[in-house]
Order: sequence, then structure tokens, then C-alpha cells
Amino acid sequence: MSQPLNIAIAGLGTVGAATAQLLREKADLLELRCGRPIVLKAVSARDRSRDRGIDLTGVEWVDDARTLATMPGIDVVVALIGGADGIAYDVVTEALAAGRHVVTANKAMLAHHGTGLARMAEGKGAALGFEAAVAGGIPIVKALREGLAANRINHVYGILNGTCNYILTTMRATGRDFGEVVEEAQNLGYAEADPSFDVDGVDTAHKLAILTSLAFGCEVDFESVYTEGISSMGAEDIRFAEELGYRVKLLGIAQQSEDGISQRVHPCLVPESAPIAHVPGVFNAVVAGGDYVGTTVYEGPGAGGGPTASAVVADLVDIARGPRLATFAIAADKLEKPVSVPISRRVGAYFICLRVRDVPGVMADVTAIFRDEAISLDSMLQRGRAPGDPVAVVLETHICEEAAMSAALAKIGRLPNMLRPPRMIRIESF
Amino acid sequence: MSQPLNIAIAGLGTVGAATAQLLREKADLLELRCGRPIVLKAVSARDRSRDRGIDLTGVEWVDDARTLATMPGIDVVVALIGGADGIAYDVVTEALAAGRHVVTANKAMLAHHGTGLARMAEGKGAALGFEAAVAGGIPIVKALREGLAANRINHVYGILNGTCNYILTTMRATGRDFGEVVEEAQNLGYAEADPSFDVDGVDTAHKLAILTSLAFGCEVDFESVYTEGISSMGAEDIRFAEELGYRVKLLGIAQQSEDGISQRVHPCLVPESAPIAHVPGVFNAVVAGGDYVGTTVYEGPGAGGGPTASAVVADLVDIARGPRLATFAIAADKLEKPVSVPISRRVGAYFICLRVRDVPGVMADVTAIFRDEAISLDSMLQRGRAPGDPVAVVLETHICEEAAMSAALAKIGRLPNMLRPPRMIRIESF
Repeated sequence: MSQPLNIAIAGLGTVGAATAQLLREKADLLELRCGRPIVLKAVSARDRSRDRGIDLTGVEWVDDARTLATMPGIDVVVALIGGADGIAYDVVTEALAAGRHVVTANKAMLAHHGTGLARMAEGKGAALGFEAAVAGGIPIVKALREGLAANRINHVYGILNGTCNYILTTMRATGRDFGEVVEEAQNLGYAEADPSFDVDGVDTAHKLAILTSLAFGCEVDFESVYTEGISSMGAEDIRFAEELGYRVKLLGIAQQSEDGISQRVHPCLVPESAPIAHVPGVFNAVVAGGDYVGTTVYEGPGAGGGPTASAVVADLVDIARGPRLATFAIAADKLEKPVSVPISRRVGAYFICLRVRDVPGVMADVTAIFRDEAISLDSMLQRGRAPGDPVAVVLETHICEEAAMSAALAKIGRLPNMLRPPRMIRIESF
Repeated sequence: MSQPLNIAIAGLGTVGAATAQLLREKADLLELRCGRPIVLKAVSARDRSRDRGIDLTGVEWVDDARTLATMPGIDVVVALIGGADGIAYDVVTEALAAGRHVVTANKAMLAHHGTGLARMAEGKGAALGFEAAVAGGIPIVKALREGLAANRINHVYGILNGTCNYILTTMRATGRDFGEVVEEAQNLGYAEADPSFDVDGVDTAHKLAILTSLAFGCEVDFESVYTEGISSMGAEDIRFAEELGYRVKLLGIAQQSEDGISQRVHPCLVPESAPIAHVPGVFNAVVAGGDYVGTTVYEGPGAGGGPTASAVVADLVDIARGPRLATFAIAADKLEKPVSVPISRRVGAYFICLRVRDVPGVMADVTAIFRDEAISLDSMLQRGRAPGDPVAVVLETHICEEAAMSAALAKIGRLPNMLRPPRMIRIESF
């Protein structure tokens, strides 16, 4: 066990540089914890001249990341290049084919190719670690795969994208609109120049697909995730939601029922009393419910160099200590495609925000449509009252099936005197 | 790997019975997750005739738990008997001496003998699992030992005793006094017939000593934990604290500084904005801060058959899958006794509740004492005003060292017109 664990890092962006820094700074502590040293032998990055503020003396540089996959003497390839395919995929598959362990933070790749990569790894007796791919520094992959392994998981849901949580938290705090807050987030480094992967919910969906596989022991099935982002969210929606006692959060939700597994990402109203309603700024939080353990909650920084490096190195420590776990909690050749329950079968309450011209008969039309779809109303707020003027109407429904709600909203959208398409946010009463 | 993992359970109380039930109910799922079956071969319990609502056909019964330690064919002894010494200790040490793995929920034993047991286990190449000993179903042992292994932990603190949290939460919600709420908790099964281990903080101190060892890589040092319970807490203290924007929680706190490690258990005022202020009822929560990961929070059910069995079986799954980790995160023969920082060196703010006769000069005496100890006051509340009547005075100080505060309180206690000893609660501003 005193043989060093030799690693190579492909990609020296924020996470790669923080990982290299951590390995150097903590060499003694890690050797004590693992019973053997973890040694960074080689790296690759596009720009060799950039100052990353880290000392890489004695570390071999290569230009083509693929070289690392088969470089002699390397035990683990740490793949920190982005993209579901391309070089990132090549590096990982070539490393696994060569029987090397792989540790990665690449959630897009795992969402698209996770099961195949797990089968390849397990066929070669190699570990595939991805703690860093979901919820940054929170050890949620380990919690689901090991800590809660005695449970049948009923549901797992969470705030999985810090950028969206920062935007929604700030919109609520300042009353400002989406576009303005996104710009501020970009200036603060909390949002990318092109924030669409975050704000459209795709990044959350990638992470949710991975959590679903771990929680329910099925293939990673990203294609079945219903995904809706936060870009249509208005300051008004958030204000009205608050008046009704809710906060708006972008959640990824996976639930198991007798019909199958539903995976969905969309803005939710959550009661102010729910712990998840109070997760601030760029933090992430995951809630996992099991039949024996009950409800457990995990919260922490969801992104950034330090927290993500912490997760990458946790995987390296596991490999250095010796275990080889089934990648997705059960052996990859036993994983089956989940029976997917579509979003149209969601049953729950809804928050509807309408903007109408205040003329007689509008509300009669709206309420008649809900009655025809057998949807009953729980509460109603109306604001702005000069006759003939635009007025905001907010409705909270009792629980119904999403198919009925979609039909009702389509009809309401076609009513005269509607000044814009109705906006709907799902209410989740955790 | 298809060889079954054969286990024996010593002690069929709530946790033992739930563990036996879980193993039977989830046999298929566990086999899938471990790649091999986990088989319950033998049990021991004092009363063979009691109906525990579980099916134990095919399981061997023995009367003396010690028999299980050396019974042929047993791989793991699950020790669920209470007490730091006596039979519980005999079973564990005899099983380890025989090279068997041990899984236990016995925090008192680990707090008193943890390092010695870890050395014994590692010397024999056996695992010693104790996820169930701290915070019930929350996988916090795994998080500290593995998930955050890349970090230097700065502090770990938490609500580690559900009984105390229930009592404090209920005192606040109802305005009732300690004794009355304890009685109610006993009727609901949330408190023992003799609740002193819980309310005196000893149970929290046991768990804190274990977390400290895991977090900082040192010997388990229960003797150095400063321990203060909640039995002197009055409804009045809680009400005044709330007026100042605080909640009262019993916390276990371990911090590392350049001077050493401080471990303390006492009631704390925590700001209403702190996540830990909102942990309800019998729940537990642990906060761990690391240099790379930042702050992470773990919350869930801290006791009860189901959650504790979930943790016990998580340890069994780890053993079935094959890893043998250093029991307390680093090899037991490398653990050293921590340099302990005494409570007198705590630096922080304080909340003081006095009950005085409302006569001229009382407050002049009190404030002069604080001035003499160089303690400055942040705020003051005074209630009840008929001259000569008893009046409650509440003071909030700026930060100072505990030694100065203790000196001041001793002097204040000797003042005339004090109607009872001053009450002090430490303010923790997480």
C-alpha cells in the first residue's frame, strides 16, 4: 500500500488548477489518509504559457490530452475537459480501454454516456469516479451509492445549479427582472458569457439524470428528463408567489412510483417552511428520502474550483485506499433502462399568473375552463383596478393532473382579452 | 465475491430488530448492491420470548452475546448492546481479537475506547464500522472520513441529540418550562425514563468526541470535552433570546486553531438566519467546514430504529463490497492525542439573564463589574417595573474571553439584590 498512486490531469481550467494545487498543498495529509502518496505526474492543457498560479515543477506537460490516456506509469486519468463528446470522451474511453481508473467532473458526458462508460470501466476492473459531477463539493454521490445503500430511495430532488439559484434569490431580494440579474451574475463570475446551459435547465437535467441512476439503480436516462428553465420567470411571478407564502426555486426532481420513474427539471414554488426554500445564493442542496432512513438533506457549495477539487480528490482518495465500487451503486451490467413517467402524468398543485384586460366576463371564461377540466381553485389574487386597464390575476389550484392543466392553459391562452400567454409554475409541497 | 457475508447481531432492541427486519426485507436489493448476499446467521438478546414483530426463522439464537464473538462462520458481529463497558465491550473486543469485523451503534463505547478499538481492529485487518453511532441515519461518518478527505477541516459542529432539540423546540413553541416538556417527551417516546444522559449533554459529548477524531485525525478524547446540558434552561431565557433574534440550540462544537482543538457541548444562541436555527424537533444536523470545500451541511433523523438500521447496514454494505478503511480516517497507529484548548479560552459573545430586585444601584454594580473585566455590552433588555419588584435583566455582550466572563459572573452572583445565580448562554454566530 505504500506504492504511490500516479495521476494525470487532462484540462487545467479552474477545477484542474485547483486540483493540482490541492494535491501539492496536501501531499502529506493525503498520504496519511490514504496510506500511500498521490502523485501528479502529468498534465495537459491548451495554453502552456498561461499563469495559473500553481507550481508544476516536475510534472510532465503534454499537448494532446489523449496522450495521457495511455501514458506509461499513470494509474488514474482525471478528466476535467468539458463537452459530452469530442476530446473529453476520447480521453475517458481510451483511458478506460487501457484499464486506467478515471475521475471526472464532466456531467454532460455522464448524462449522455454514463451507463456505457460504467460498463466499460467495470469490464476492465477500473473505477469511474464522478463525485465532482453533481453538486460540487457536497458528497452526494457517495451518500446515495454508499451511505444510503440500505434504503429503497423514494425520491431525490434538489437545487443543482448555483447560477439559477443565485439569479432567483437575487430577483426575489431586489425585485429586479431576469435579464438585469443575469447580467449582474455574469459580471460577478456566477454566470457564463452564454448562460443558456444553466438558465435553460440543461445543466440541472444532466446532474439529475446521474442522481436518478444512483438512487434507483437504473441506466442513466437523460433523454427522459423533462426540462424547463427559468428564463421566462418574471419579477412579478416571484412577488405574487411570495404573497402566497412560496419561494421560487429551480429544482431537479426524480420520483419513483408504481408506474415508473419521473425525472423533471422546472421552476417550482416551494413553501417558505421547506428547508430547501432557504438555500441561499450559489449554494446547492439535495434532499434524498429512503424507506428506512426517512428524509436526509445535504447542502454546500455547488461549484467553483475549491469545492469541485475537494470532490475530485475524494474520488482519488477512494481509489488510493483500494475499493472498487459499482459505478452507479449496482453492477453496470445489471442496470436497466427505467420505465419513464412523462410530465403529463405529474399530479400536483399549480400557480397560474395571467395578465388580462379588466373587462366583464374574463374571469367567468377562465373559471369555466378550469371547471370543464375538473380543476378546482384554491386561492386567487387580483391587482391593478382601473377598469379596462391590464390587470394581473394569480390563481393557485388544488392538485390535478398536468395533462388537464395543459389543456386548460391552451384554452385560456386563446381567450380574448388575454394580454400574454398564461404563465404556470408547479407547486411542490415537500 | 458471491460468497455470502455472514453476520450476527448482539442485542435485539429497537435498532437490532429494525436491522434484522431490513436485512430480510431488502435481501435482494442488498445482494444486487453488494454483489453478494448479506445473511443474518445468529442473534442474541436477553428475552427470547418477546414478540419483536420480526421473522427470525432459520436464525440461530444464543443466550450469551459473547458466544457470537467467536461463533464459527460469522464474518461480522453487529454490536447493538449499550454501555461503554461490560458485555458490550467484551463482545466487541473478543470479536476483533478473533479477526471478525465489527459494526456498532454504541457511541459511549467509542467515545471511551475508540482509539484502542481501532488499533485492535486494524492490527487484525478487521473493519470497525460506526456510522450508526453519530447522527443516526445521516451518513456523516462517511462524509468526514471519505467525502471530505481532501480537506483540512476547520470546524465541525451540530445538533447531535434529537431529544434535546425536541425539548428546546417545544419550549420555544409553547412557552412551557423544561420539566413539563421533558415529561411530554417521555410520554411521546422521545426521551428516556431517565433522560439525564441526553439532557446533561453527555450523549452529545460522546458523539462530538467521535466526530472530532474523524475530522482532525486525532485520538478520540472524550475526557477533554467541556459538557453542559440544558436542564437549567428556562422558558424565560428562550423568550428573551428570541427577542434579540436568536434561537437556543444544544450544540456540540469542535474547532481547530493554532493552539489546539477545543471540544465543547453547551446551549448556544444561534442567529435566526443560521440554517442550524431551523432544524426541527428530533432531527439532527451537522455542519462541517473544510479549507477547499467550504461549508457543508447534513441533516436528517438522528435516532430511531429505521434511520439507525439504515446506518448499520450501510457499514455492512461497505464491508461486503470489500474496502477496509482506516477506522478514524487515518491509520489508528498514527493517531495522536489532540492538544486540547480548554473552555476558559473560548472567545465569543455572551447572553446573560439576571433576576434582580429593582432597587437603585443594581445596574451600576453589574456594569462596573463588566467594565473591570474589560467586557463591553452590546444590548440590554429589562422587563417588569413595579419599584422593589423582581425584574429580569438581559444583557448581550461583545466578544470576550470566557475566563473574563466567568470571573464577572462569579462577582455578579455575589452582589446583593441578585435573586438567583446569573444565567449565561454562549452566542455562536455561524
